[in-house]
Formats: sequence, structure tokens, C-alpha cells
Amino acid sequence: MKKSLGAKTIVYPTPVFIVGTYDKNEKPDVMAAAWGGISCSQPPCVSISLQKQRYTLKNIVEREAFTISIPSEEYVAESDYFGIVSGKDEDKFLESGLTHVKSKIVDAPYVKEFPLILECKLVHTVDLGRHTQFTGEIMDVKVDEKATDTNGLPDITKIKPFTFDPAGMAYYGIGNNLGPAFNIGKKIKKQ
Amino acid sequence: MKKSLGAKTIVYPTPVFIVGTYDKNEKPDVMAAAWGGISCSQPPCVSISLQKQRYTLKNIVEREAFTISIPSEEYVAESDYFGIVSGKDEDKFLESGLTHVKSKIVDAPYVKEFPLILECKLVHTVDLGRHTQFTGEIMDVKVDEKATDTNGLPDITKIKPFTFDPAGMAYYGIGNNLGPAFNIGKKIKKQ
Repeated sequence: MKKSLGAKTIVYPTPVFIVGTYDKNEKPDVMAAAWGGISCSQPPCVSISLQKQRYTLKNIVEREAFTISIPSEEYVAESDYFGIVSGKDEDKFLESGLTHVKSKIVDAPYVKEFPLILECKLVHTVDLGRHTQFTGEIMDVKVDEKATDTNGLPDITKIKPFTFDPAGMAYYGIGNNLGPAFNIGKKIKKQ
Repeated sequence: MKKSLGAKTIVYPTPVFIVGTYDKNEKPDVMAAAWGGISCSQPPCVSISLQKQRYTLKNIVEREAFTISIPSEEYVAESDYFGIVSGKDEDKFLESGLTHVKSKIVDAPYVKEFPLILECKLVHTVDLGRHTQFTGEIMDVKVDEKATDTNGLPDITKIKPFTFDPAGMAYYGIGNNLGPAFNIGKKIKKQ
């Protein structure tokens, strides 16, 4: 039996994207964004949504670029911190002890210690209400060499990403491999 | 040391949204979409991106509505199947044995057996290239009563959602609780 919860923003899984930008004084900043996801395969794009008062929002509008750094489990406290305070009030790199690296491809910094990086150039903006959605073309993906599989691609079991639970307000790691995509459903396919 | 992978659509976590629509003959259909996420808090919105040739794309344009059903781990094969075949060729509800329910709120069906449902009215469309991004206002969220916590909200450990790994092409369950959101980062916050 299903019950109605009303109009809410609850869905699974929800990401923890650490969005990196520069402000007009070249100060690097990062924030945690849970509203977003890949939005196009060709050109490869990712969309993120930010509240209007966000320091990062102004930075993206001015610099037309951002990065997304995907944290591993060991950085869950730092990632949460990035979502609690504003870059207006604190130097988040200084306080967290993490390292900003200037992208050579887009006008934005990323987090050196995080295993997976997307470098994005702003291509589309839409005002949806409380949030503005920014779509960035993914110009490059960078991965820690030690977090790759035998094909040289990111290995999720080494990246150890985590997910935000917007109902229970907690972070969860990634669990067991449930089977191969575009494959385990074949047994159901009409013969 | 980081290595460059080029412009790719790899990010974690990536969802498995089962998108429900009716076609012009009232035939219910579902497809699996991995490109998407919540995109606004007020009004509550979720965005999904579909390739242009998708049967579902035409349905959303015509009916201006869709649902997102979140599958639990036990339905990973059915969910994969929904992404392998087209509603043009097969009746996916018939073949999978799952049950379609007509939403009372929007002009679209959802999957009865799946524990969490979002019912959405189309509010914004943008062509990003190979994919068209549809943003729906979430009119209601429905949850299985047996999958709720003591507050009556969805319990992620009972919902048992899973994630798609776009690098390793596999599905993964949700793992351990890593700590409370908007809380565990406070220890880093400047005093």
C-alpha cells in the first residue's frame, strides 16, 4: 500500500557533487550540490542546480565554468562541511586542509585529493524557481591512476563515491555489485 | 597522479530512474533513464534526459507528464530490461510481469511493485544535443508504507535503491551509513 507524501524532493540515488569555482578575485571556492546529474551524451553534459543566494552561482555566471570533484568515503566530513558554510564567510580550502588545483582546460579549480574530476564549460542556464540550473559541457574527466580498473577506466570500488539521502539526511556508501548493465535484463526480453 | 580520460559521461552516483508514460493509444510504457536528478526545491522539480529516438520522448511531448518509479534491488533485472528494449517493439509491462497503475495526479502510469514514485508534470524542455532534457514539477511523491521510517518518510535501507556505474557498466546497491548530513562537517567549521 502506497501513501502520499506531497510534493517533495526525494529521489534515490542523489549525488554529492563538489562544485569548484573562482570568484572575481581569483579566490577558489567549493560547495556541495545534491541537485544534478548527467544531462547529455553528445556533447557530454552535466547539470547542477544552485540556490540564487549561493556564492558559487555568481562565480559560474561570471566565469562561465565550473568543476565537479567526486569525493571518496574518507572525505565525507569535508564534503559535508563544503555544504554547510558559504565561501562568502570562510576559505573552505584553508579550513578543510584540502588542495585546490587550477584546471588547465576551464576557468575553475578542482580538489586534488578527490579521485574523479569533471571540468565543465557553461553552455545553458535556466531559472527553475528557487534554484537555477546550470548545464556544463564536460571538457575532460580526470581520474586518480590508482583508482582505475584494468581498462584504465574509473573503478567504482576504488573511487568509493557516496550518496546523499534527502529523506533520512545522511550519507551512504556504495554497496554490492548487483550485476552487469544492458545484460541481466536480457533474460526477460521476449524471445 | 591524475590521468585524463577525455570528454566522457562518467559521474557517481548515477541513478536508475524508471520513467513511465502513456502513448497516444493509452498504452503504458516504461524506460530506464540514467541521465537525470533533482533540479529545483521550490517548485520541486526533477530533470531527465532522453535520446531523440526514444518512444518515451514522444509520449512526454504529447502528454506533458511522466512518472519516475524507483526500483529496489530485487527488481534490478526488470529495470535493466526496461533499458534494453523499446516500447515500440515490446509491451514491457506484459513481458516483465510488473503492474502499471494510472496516476490520479498526472497523465502517466507508474510501477506498482516499486517502492518510491514521483508524479511529474512537464514544465521545461531543452534540446542539449543527442539528448533532450525534460524538467517535471513533482506533484506528489508516493512511498510503500512498509518502506518508511518512524517519521513516515522513505527509509533508504528499506527502499534498497541502486545505482548505475557508467564506467564499469554495472549496478550497485547502497552501502553503509557514513554519517548525518549538515552535521558531520561541523567539526571542520571555523570556530
